[in-house]
Amino acid sequence: MRIALAQINPTVGDIAGNTAKHLDAIERARQQGAELVVFPEMSVLGYPPKDLLLKPAVLAACAAAVERIAAACTDIAAIIGFAESNPSPTGRDLYNSAAVCAGGKVVHTRHKSLLPTYDVFDELRYFEPGAAVDITSVNGIDLGISICEDLWNQQDVVSRQLYHDNPIDQLAARGAKLFVNCSASPFAVRKNEFRRKLIQHAAKKHALPVVFVNQVGGNDELIFDGNSCVVDAAGNLIAQAKDFEEDLLVVDLDADPGSITNTPRDGMASVYAALVMGLRDYCAKCGFKSLVVGLSGGIDSAVVAAISAAAMGPENVTGIAMPSRYSSGHSKSDAQRLAENLGMKFMTVPIEPAHLAMDHMLTAAFDTDLNDITAQNIQARLRGIILMGYSNQHGSMLVTTGNKSEIAVGYCTLYGDMAGGLAVISDVPKTMVYELARHINAHELPGAIPESTITKPPSAELRPDQKDQDTLPDYAVLDEIVERYIERHDSAAKIIADTGLDAEIVNKVARMIDLNEYKRKQMPPGLKITSRAFGFGRRMPIAQRWRENK
Amino acid sequence: MRIALAQINPTVGDIAGNTAKHLDAIERARQQGAELVVFPEMSVLGYPPKDLLLKPAVLAACAAAVERIAAACTDIAAIIGFAESNPSPTGRDLYNSAAVCAGGKVVHTRHKSLLPTYDVFDELRYFEPGAAVDITSVNGIDLGISICEDLWNQQDVVSRQLYHDNPIDQLAARGAKLFVNCSASPFAVRKNEFRRKLIQHAAKKHALPVVFVNQVGGNDELIFDGNSCVVDAAGNLIAQAKDFEEDLLVVDLDADPGSITNTPRDGMASVYAALVMGLRDYCAKCGFKSLVVGLSGGIDSAVVAAISAAAMGPENVTGIAMPSRYSSGHSKSDAQRLAENLGMKFMTVPIEPAHLAMDHMLTAAFDTDLNDITAQNIQARLRGIILMGYSNQHGSMLVTTGNKSEIAVGYCTLYGDMAGGLAVISDVPKTMVYELARHINAHELPGAIPESTITKPPSAELRPDQKDQDTLPDYAVLDEIVERYIERHDSAAKIIADTGLDAEIVNKVARMIDLNEYKRKQMPPGLKITSRAFGFGRRMPIAQRWRENK
Repeated sequence: MRIALAQINPTVGDIAGNTAKHLDAIERARQQGAELVVFPEMSVLGYPPKDLLLKPAVLAACAAAVERIAAACTDIAAIIGFAESNPSPTGRDLYNSAAVCAGGKVVHTRHKSLLPTYDVFDELRYFEPGAAVDITSVNGIDLGISICEDLWNQQDVVSRQLYHDNPIDQLAARGAKLFVNCSASPFAVRKNEFRRKLIQHAAKKHALPVVFVNQVGGNDELIFDGNSCVVDAAGNLIAQAKDFEEDLLVVDLDADPGSITNTPRDGMASVYAALVMGLRDYCAKCGFKSLVVGLSGGIDSAVVAAISAAAMGPENVTGIAMPSRYSSGHSKSDAQRLAENLGMKFMTVPIEPAHLAMDHMLTAAFDTDLNDITAQNIQARLRGIILMGYSNQHGSMLVTTGNKSEIAVGYCTLYGDMAGGLAVISDVPKTMVYELARHINAHELPGAIPESTITKPPSAELRPDQKDQDTLPDYAVLDEIVERYIERHDSAAKIIADTGLDAEIVNKVARMIDLNEYKRKQMPPGLKITSRAFGFGRRMPIAQRWRENK
Repeated sequence: MRIALAQINPTVGDIAGNTAKHLDAIERARQQGAELVVFPEMSVLGYPPKDLLLKPAVLAACAAAVERIAAACTDIAAIIGFAESNPSPTGRDLYNSAAVCAGGKVVHTRHKSLLPTYDVFDELRYFEPGAAVDITSVNGIDLGISICEDLWNQQDVVSRQLYHDNPIDQLAARGAKLFVNCSASPFAVRKNEFRRKLIQHAAKKHALPVVFVNQVGGNDELIFDGNSCVVDAAGNLIAQAKDFEEDLLVVDLDADPGSITNTPRDGMASVYAALVMGLRDYCAKCGFKSLVVGLSGGIDSAVVAAISAAAMGPENVTGIAMPSRYSSGHSKSDAQRLAENLGMKFMTVPIEPAHLAMDHMLTAAFDTDLNDITAQNIQARLRGIILMGYSNQHGSMLVTTGNKSEIAVGYCTLYGDMAGGLAVISDVPKTMVYELARHINAHELPGAIPESTITKPPSAELRPDQKDQDTLPDYAVLDEIVERYIERHDSAAKIIADTGLDAEIVNKVARMIDLNEYKRKQMPPGLKITSRAFGFGRRMPIAQRWRENK
């Protein structure tokens, strides 16, 4: 059997545009002699549709699109993903469905059984779990169709079984001869390896080939890496789609592993590709054609500027340096050199006139000198006004440059450096920002980031001779604590016991993380690249008093 | 049987403090001769605990607190709510549990069966549904214990049954002689009436009395109104706790309806009480002792200032007027008069010096005149800097004054008037802001809001002679569209068909609502008083292209 894996990049809610992508892929698959073309989960609506699912008009448009796509499946079959109304008066309103289209109509529908409701996933908010796990035949081959999470409850691979059923085992027991999994499985560093393991395990356990089709593209915080693939009944990879771009991969099920040409990126190469695609798609799907970024001369804004230039073309990115009375000479020259290296537009707007005015206004009004925090935040917020002014004037989206480490401990100013439309590296810990900078300089945009930007000690330059490490522990230490506290939910006590780090530092960092939830509540969406990012997948109360040592 | 309804106001995560509240209520109930004291859902941890539930240390502390409270139940029984680890290797990690404590230990545990996962509720993110629906006996009375949502799947009262089971029917079938429901059911306008109907329906259907104990207090966006009550087997209300404050209501099950002294507030009185409590609790639970608010002379900031003065005492509230070159004389005098009427602190900080500086800086840097949006946003953001400057300098929380109507259509400036720690009236439509102002002047703080603030046409005063209705439809029209589009998820087409409103206006407003999701993503938490508020309970994608007319 010849199968086409239609790894598309849908836009959430763009049912007309996504339908066109389906029809195009079906036509190209037909021309290449495919008998079946498989699309990702929820391909008609795009994933995750979130509360668009509560709109009856969205569901009606979805149903109409499914009919239209099915009508095009005359001499070819297709499996497409969509949200379907549940006709029962009891239970949740919807199913997360995959429709098998053939002979010009929908011939079979499979309802997703396992509905992830953790981290960034909210599926039980909308969907009723599928009751039946049926197989269906296409051109004489019995297909066992599963949808994303249905593949993820295999007890030999996953440590905790969240669900009581294993649809893969059930499909095999019902006589499936080929597994097809339609997914919208987001990127995280190293996740593709684990996903591959799950796929290969299912194949080997049941001695059946697996066709895995994943969504690609960025949707708000989530980056979908694609990496669709086919493994044979022995678990060998026999086909591999591209990562981080659309692909139509046509595969004969008896293909040879030797024919694979794509190699999934890993490490910093995958993080870089993910962030570039995530930013590019966010702009494209929101309708922005250009970006503006504040350039401090530091490493965070340099890395974000490089990613911006790669995503949108350097001619569509403007860097603005906004020196203050505390800015060092190297900050200004590093910012300018970076902009020149990247070939982006550049301007300098010294903040002194507004800084002076605001200082006088507040000192007079409060009838006292400004304290340190007040004085520092004014500078960051005046810069926010300048950058948002450029954004308003030119229609460019402001990209936010904060990294995960500083956002964790609140070493950032709300409405100041936290302002913007998308936080590009808000899930990248500071130590990884350095790795990314070196990767960019070595492999992506050779030598673009000035060496002094990488080597000088990090500073916010909001008062004379300020250094990050006046306030924070070394970033290597901070990042270890942040990773354990945020991603693993370890307590401070466990972190101290497991790492031997200084108890006072660990407790202080944990407390800073807890206390700064209110800032993160108001941050822009940030691209997710780790197992737990700030934002939609981390839902902490703000007015709360959990204290470990109380 | 004599039962105490312990309507407590727990702080989320404050397990030590909440435990103390339990021990205190148990002791007072004992002194009043109660045999059983009933607490709200999740009373030990506070509701909603959100992702605190992912921390193993929180669960361990919870378990220890339950033991400690149970140990105090020697000659009295108590029903308390907590999060409990699920010992099974399969399924979600936790149960949402109610423990019956008697004889110094936990004698029975009931796991919540129906786990709300819609709007602001995320319970299937954490909890495994309870499998068994057992009854338990206290002092010879067979109790049918249910937890909040367990009461809400009664097919005669609720239009759609989200769940396949009805635990109330199951408890009755197992021989319960008294229903006890532990709840954390948040406030919305008119919701208490519906809740009462559910309770009375359960009583009448099974001819059994119902003891209903609800949490009280504000936790982030959610306001819990209390309104705990007891109905007899005929469905008559025989006891009613206070609304919007803690209460320990001791009731004999054979009490007479005539003994009721509390009457739940409704309409604007309930909205006012809810917002005052919500703001007060947010401050108390975050640790703020004072507030700062920007006073424009308009009705939104006047209502928020009045609520702030009521919540924290006027001596702990500072109003700041920040006139610009476009401010009218009446704006300045109305702002000052309001502050005097309320007895709050007041200062004036004209924005002109910083406005002039920023105008010059940006005009020079962009080498062109500033467009209208850019020029207006600069003013709003300079005011944001001044208010946040006061907040940083004095440790006062900035309250945000935007109403639901303007936030819906984006008639507000990110990092400007949207800045602050809590949005007090972000779920109050503009027409209701007027109702609230009249209610405040008539019943709460007589004459506090200047009449001219209520009667003059609303204006942002960001350019000469600007009026809200230059850009927006009449607020009565706008609010009807907002209510149908946001709360009911009606399409624009349905709104036009149902109301006969002008199609162009409806489509334009719907489009403005869709396009301004990015602003709402970055707004502070806002107190919820309708069936659907912006914030945690409304989860729209940002980079999306759903267009009804495409």
